[in-house]
Amino acid sequence: MKPLGPIPPGYEAIDGELAVGGRTARALVEDAGGTPLFVYSAELIRRRMAELRAAMPGQLKVHYAVKANPYRPILELMRELADGFDIASGGELDMVMAAGQDPLLISFAGPGKRDEELALAIAHGVTLNLESEAEARRALDVAHRLGSTPRLAIRVNPDFELRGSGMKMGGGAKPFGLDQQRVPALAREIIAAGAEWRGLHIFTGSQALDAGAIIETQANVLQLAHRLTYEIGVALPHLNMGGGFGIPYFHGDQPVDIGAIGAALSELFGHIPVGLQGTEFAIELGRYLVGEAGVYLTRIVDRKESHGQTFLVTDGGLHHQLAASGNFGTVVRRNYPAAIATKFGAEPDEEASIVGCLCTPLDRLADQTQLPRADVGDLVAVFCAGAYGATASPSAFLGQGPAREIMV
Amino acid sequence: MKPLGPIPPGYEAIDGELAVGGRTARALVEDAGGTPLFVYSAELIRRRMAELRAAMPGQLKVHYAVKANPYRPILELMRELADGFDIASGGELDMVMAAGQDPLLISFAGPGKRDEELALAIAHGVTLNLESEAEARRALDVAHRLGSTPRLAIRVNPDFELRGSGMKMGGGAKPFGLDQQRVPALAREIIAAGAEWRGLHIFTGSQALDAGAIIETQANVLQLAHRLTYEIGVALPHLNMGGGFGIPYFHGDQPVDIGAIGAALSELFGHIPVGLQGTEFAIELGRYLVGEAGVYLTRIVDRKESHGQTFLVTDGGLHHQLAASGNFGTVVRRNYPAAIATKFGAEPDEEASIVGCLCTPLDRLADQTQLPRADVGDLVAVFCAGAYGATASPSAFLGQGPAREIMV
Repeated sequence: MKPLGPIPPGYEAIDGELAVGGRTARALVEDAGGTPLFVYSAELIRRRMAELRAAMPGQLKVHYAVKANPYRPILELMRELADGFDIASGGELDMVMAAGQDPLLISFAGPGKRDEELALAIAHGVTLNLESEAEARRALDVAHRLGSTPRLAIRVNPDFELRGSGMKMGGGAKPFGLDQQRVPALAREIIAAGAEWRGLHIFTGSQALDAGAIIETQANVLQLAHRLTYEIGVALPHLNMGGGFGIPYFHGDQPVDIGAIGAALSELFGHIPVGLQGTEFAIELGRYLVGEAGVYLTRIVDRKESHGQTFLVTDGGLHHQLAASGNFGTVVRRNYPAAIATKFGAEPDEEASIVGCLCTPLDRLADQTQLPRADVGDLVAVFCAGAYGATASPSAFLGQGPAREIMV
Repeated sequence: MKPLGPIPPGYEAIDGELAVGGRTARALVEDAGGTPLFVYSAELIRRRMAELRAAMPGQLKVHYAVKANPYRPILELMRELADGFDIASGGELDMVMAAGQDPLLISFAGPGKRDEELALAIAHGVTLNLESEAEARRALDVAHRLGSTPRLAIRVNPDFELRGSGMKMGGGAKPFGLDQQRVPALAREIIAAGAEWRGLHIFTGSQALDAGAIIETQANVLQLAHRLTYEIGVALPHLNMGGGFGIPYFHGDQPVDIGAIGAALSELFGHIPVGLQGTEFAIELGRYLVGEAGVYLTRIVDRKESHGQTFLVTDGGLHHQLAASGNFGTVVRRNYPAAIATKFGAEPDEEASIVGCLCTPLDRLADQTQLPRADVGDLVAVFCAGAYGATASPSAFLGQGPAREIMV
């Protein structure tokens, strides 16, 4: 038996069925026109943001990392909830602007920005987080051609990393940002070239659950920003301190202690060095804001036995939930939180595996786990589907196509 | 230094540049309107099929597994080259029929077939490879409702597997097919119910390079088909023996010896048991037919150093080449064959990593390998991109969108 991950808070049962926003799973599927379906809860996103705001110092800005989920209604909700948007491509810029976000609150990081993307961003006043000296020069050239003043920040590859993070974005040789030692020279160069100096972006990792590691990293980030600002010799308008707040996916995972992080940040901000006293501080979160607010619903189309094991075959799969299938940069496959949505809260009474409809052994949503008995027609819920689900999965694989999405 | 995989045969240099079908990489990119670009060579697909036909016994049918690459011009070419199409969804059925294939030459396997998919297939006379007793009954119900005679085969989960295959599809508890012991009863049931009996589908694994393992498995498959036919008591019209022929992706991989496989099959077919003498035999290949005929071209947009390592940052990445990035069900990342397309055949003179444009450390196309020095504007080629590339990757990730595709 392999355990399931913990079901996030905020999900309830109505008449023995999983409900989101007061609507049962079956009703949601009917509203949306069928399965497979991603359901996102606006209420859970609001609640998450409210808890975060309550825990963090008042002056800390919270940006939304669009890559986690660019679904239009989520971007529209974030226009109200977040202080800014961090994007990673020209495509994301289009999406965020279509959702009505002020371009002056958008910043763009990403190691392979094309000239067209630089031009689009500069023309709209989007802040570019520069990833290299060469990119800085291309941005200056593009801005010159457009007759615009580019808003430029530098992404720093710090010498330290975020301990225990699922994805390390700092420490050692990396394709992201400039090694910290080279930052002051480039900053002085772009300031001298007439760019609007927007500050630093120091992103060290993501999906960390250990508040202690995040606290230590945030202190290191502030210290590094202070030292670099001293070396640059120009006030730092903005510091993107990165994100890194994880969510519990697997059995035994504990939620990150945002109270502890907020208290430590308040302490840090209470003793801010003189050189950073005019600086605006921001964190950049994607998964933490929306990951647990999404659930993926798929219908059981077959129930079968093979060599004594039970398989529940669904009409969904890794083409919508690549990470949940354990195939996206994962070494050891573990079960995400999942449930029989039409028997939500029922006691388990059998061991079964939930698989997708793709003709590949990779397509497994829950492996050999305890579930209430389910049959053809029952709905399966995979939780933690609000981030890196729909857009981070190969939806065209085996001719399947994208899932439906709704927000309630 | 980490070695690159072997560049497949058939690629040449023209004026120091990679050429496909007599066109240089730059010319191909211009034809297609830009990068990232998948280029598929019709000539290499034809050549591969011709070599295969020459090696295999004349009576062996060769089916194309559409999941490997459903690009329309490839499907159209396969209408001419292949004896049948194996599909895995209703979406693939639509694509194959749009490409003009005779539905009577199509068979449909996949563990999660929806009723609508069963109806579509039955209405067109497509053969269904049944995956369970419950699916068989749904298919019979659907056919009854339509007033059609369904063409039904049974997919077998054999007790043996294909040794050394990259993906095991048989042996032990599997969501695919029926455990072999249960096949005769279901076959008799569907024949008695008036279905047209189409035979057996025994797929044991894919991406095997060891001809010995394939030969052993094919002998086992024939033996099992013979035994099951005896138990069913009705002649076997068709046996899909599966595929499994791999292609070399990684340093040290050797091409599969199709001559040896063909010789062994000829020997087997020369002593075919009486019970199978009217049977049509087919193999089902996808990756082997098209994988090496495709190359992914992407442009270098940045060249940067970090802690002494060189990174070539491209405008492509894992959103088109998930498997090449080492993140699709891979435990240990190894380099696919890759090259600087605009310096094809040049001696290496530096160590560099080729990364994609996505803001994630997962996005790496070649890690710390020897390459001729390349700069911004140069094109990178990733080989073995003809199968499980474009459609098996999350093209919407980070707002990027799909790559261009052309066939030459």
